[in-house]
Amino acid sequence: MTLRLHNFFRSSTSTRLRAALNLKGLPYDYVGYSLRDGQTRTPQFLALNPAGLVPVLERDDGVVLTQSLAIIEWLEETMPTPPLLPADADGRARVRALAYMLACEIHPLNNLRVLRRLNEQFGADEAAQEAWFVHWVKATFDAFEISLASSAATGRYCHGDVPGLADICLYAQVWNNRRFAIDGSAWPTIDRIFAALDALPAFRDAAPPNQPDAS
Amino acid sequence: MTLRLHNFFRSSTSTRLRAALNLKGLPYDYVGYSLRDGQTRTPQFLALNPAGLVPVLERDDGVVLTQSLAIIEWLEETMPTPPLLPADADGRARVRALAYMLACEIHPLNNLRVLRRLNEQFGADEAAQEAWFVHWVKATFDAFEISLASSAATGRYCHGDVPGLADICLYAQVWNNRRFAIDGSAWPTIDRIFAALDALPAFRDAAPPNQPDAS
Repeated sequence: MTLRLHNFFRSSTSTRLRAALNLKGLPYDYVGYSLRDGQTRTPQFLALNPAGLVPVLERDDGVVLTQSLAIIEWLEETMPTPPLLPADADGRARVRALAYMLACEIHPLNNLRVLRRLNEQFGADEAAQEAWFVHWVKATFDAFEISLASSAATGRYCHGDVPGLADICLYAQVWNNRRFAIDGSAWPTIDRIFAALDALPAFRDAAPPNQPDAS
Repeated sequence: MTLRLHNFFRSSTSTRLRAALNLKGLPYDYVGYSLRDGQTRTPQFLALNPAGLVPVLERDDGVVLTQSLAIIEWLEETMPTPPLLPADADGRARVRALAYMLACEIHPLNNLRVLRRLNEQFGADEAAQEAWFVHWVKATFDAFEISLASSAATGRYCHGDVPGLADICLYAQVWNNRRFAIDGSAWPTIDRIFAALDALPAFRDAAPPNQPDAS
């Protein structure tokens, strides 16, 4: 099966999916779109995904998959080895909850179209956009750090010693944070896990600066 | 197993989980918290969920589950009948993508703490908050309507004729929209499916006005 990944190097939802594909050992054709230039708002792209969002995974049978977390669950169901979720239901619930903390409480508030909207509706300049961005990162990272540090289930990675769905979301979010100067010293467990992930080729190869459209 | 649901009548993530529990036929003890009064920021609640967010599902074995979508996936894995996801992997990917469109692209931008932050940081009054809210609903509902109307997989509900995860998220979001005057006539498929869901006791009993803490 040939997979075509429509994505953007700096998009953190794209980073998630690249890391998942790499962890599963699945090669893909990389198609880059510049969000800043509106390349996901063209009629061609909207025919692929009416929401105008990356990433999109296009299969050679014509099926088009959208939403990074839905695609990752599909990968997990159809290509379960190596696993991105633990085997036990309680562990899976914990990993998904950690992943959704990042995917539902930080990223949607801090992506490019939201920062642009803040500028359009409220005249938010770069400093105000940064304050907004940092506010939401801190609100969730403070809780995320507690959730990691207080649980015996946390290991080398977010859940035990095998990297999975929560790690994928964390890795992408920490890269996203680097767009602004965020002091991570309050989150030592997050910091430690990010460093461990960044040493793995599957993650490192998914990082924004290592993509063909990086600028 | 006794389940205790920590939630808030108007919270749309709480509405999702109530609908899922009702569809699974699982009774639960209802514990209501007023978000407006900061009742999820107390030390007692933060010990339950460091993120200070509802819903939380507490089991009688002491395990505490957070994040509505993670809890619903746990329900689906441990109590698979009746199913909230289709049996086939492509169908599951479609339903999850539809659910995440709402759960990741609308709700995180429009909940109470975000509207409050807009007021605190940008002085957004009620009219500006409403404009923000409506902007994000329209951006995703326009695409959601296209996704539903253009797919043969759409049936009486979002996917075929069995209500599931996408319907749960849609039902909760349409209730959330009612906080403001939003003209739904541009989304006839969404409108039709909401009406069909609202006729089902499992959904109707999960609706905000039908909760013990409704005001």
